[in-house]
Amino acid sequence: MKNGKVTLLSAGPGALDLLTMRAARVLGEADVLLVDDLANPEIATLAPQARVIAVGKRGGCRSTPQAFIERMMCRFAKRGAHVVRVKGGDALMFGRAGEEMTALRRAGVPVEIVNGISSAFAAAAGLGMSLTHRDHCAGVTFVTAHRQDGSAPNWAALAAAGTTLAIYMGLHRVEELSATLLSHLDAGTPAGAVQWAGTPQERRMVTTLGQLAADVRAQGFASPTILLVGGAVGEASVAMGGMGVMGGVVEEVVARAA
Amino acid sequence: MKNGKVTLLSAGPGALDLLTMRAARVLGEADVLLVDDLANPEIATLAPQARVIAVGKRGGCRSTPQAFIERMMCRFAKRGAHVVRVKGGDALMFGRAGEEMTALRRAGVPVEIVNGISSAFAAAAGLGMSLTHRDHCAGVTFVTAHRQDGSAPNWAALAAAGTTLAIYMGLHRVEELSATLLSHLDAGTPAGAVQWAGTPQERRMVTTLGQLAADVRAQGFASPTILLVGGAVGEASVAMGGMGVMGGVVEEVVARAA
Repeated sequence: MKNGKVTLLSAGPGALDLLTMRAARVLGEADVLLVDDLANPEIATLAPQARVIAVGKRGGCRSTPQAFIERMMCRFAKRGAHVVRVKGGDALMFGRAGEEMTALRRAGVPVEIVNGISSAFAAAAGLGMSLTHRDHCAGVTFVTAHRQDGSAPNWAALAAAGTTLAIYMGLHRVEELSATLLSHLDAGTPAGAVQWAGTPQERRMVTTLGQLAADVRAQGFASPTILLVGGAVGEASVAMGGMGVMGGVVEEVVARAA
Repeated sequence: MKNGKVTLLSAGPGALDLLTMRAARVLGEADVLLVDDLANPEIATLAPQARVIAVGKRGGCRSTPQAFIERMMCRFAKRGAHVVRVKGGDALMFGRAGEEMTALRRAGVPVEIVNGISSAFAAAAGLGMSLTHRDHCAGVTFVTAHRQDGSAPNWAALAAAGTTLAIYMGLHRVEELSATLLSHLDAGTPAGAVQWAGTPQERRMVTTLGQLAADVRAQGFASPTILLVGGAVGEASVAMGGMGVMGGVVEEVVARAA
């Protein structure tokens, strides 16, 4: 019997052609494909030999989904299958990959990682901005507003660090997080929002931190939305002729290679 | 005459199969390919129709390289060419894409972005760790130790923010930056280094912040090296059986899908 293994595979932000060539090859070799409900279901077309299993919180399993998924991966791999666990964006960012790798190592199952594009990169591409424009910052911080223990990130320190902020899972508490950031950053700090980044349904907005919460609500942004805050976001509006677009929906900042 | 344009294309960390399928398609359509000296030259094999021009600081041009590259992109695009500017990692991180987009927009040249994988993601894959393990942090900060004006990033704030730190271009000042971080973080904070992340020559090390500078020097790490600091890095060593690998070179943390 061949040796089984698990690949944690990054599906990128949505469009299938944003998968890497390595990801496409590995999908073609998969025996079992575990796909989150939220991932693009078309990814299964790249894994023609695989048994495709939808997993995730809406999967209807009674056990806790995470433990259930980890057990299933171990079970198939120990039977010799190449199990491919598909994760949105990059597997190593906000996706429980750390816990899954620990569980698989404990079970003696080999794990491989295939990287991909996290959605904040697609969001920045949509807005036509660098995440780290050197006139504005020394880097970028990817942070989730939704912590395991219910606590908030240290927004004061994040604001003081002066990096562009790319906030995942922040829309449902945008009022709270922008109010907190406003005690450390100027209300005129450029801010943006991109819903469904990297997909044909992508929606984009550039505004200011002071207006961010009101504007995303007024424009009806919904999850999944990436929020971006910092001077580098101000470069996005340059493409639209400057301040005129602040607060409005940016329909087409740059032509996309879609 | 057809309309010209420029695509800022992300070449990823090095291995050609870590390009996206979209990047491969766009390369196949390129009329002119501008490739940095540091990018994998094999990328030209994916652009068989293109005139390939090596650019960069070692290109031998007398004018400032950045202005020269921007003028060349505009000139070819205005003659109707599809110019593909290849950038290592993701084009929107630490690559002057912001300045190039501004120059192109001012010249009325359409710009497209094709995202890719930044090398810190490949570094984390090499170490078999999540960048954002939720037991340890609320996110990850990608920061360059080398700022335009010679100033240092706000290490105190970055340390206080509690995110994993992924430090680009930090090796040449690792003594200085680790000393600064040590005034804010415990000496036992896990730290790692990955040279040539995502290439066949990749080298990896896991140690502590207190030992980082001495260990990367002792092991002869050279540029390009990504430095990683934070509790999440400690999960990498778990794969090697715990503390035994601290300070040593991790030869194979996980099997790679190479």
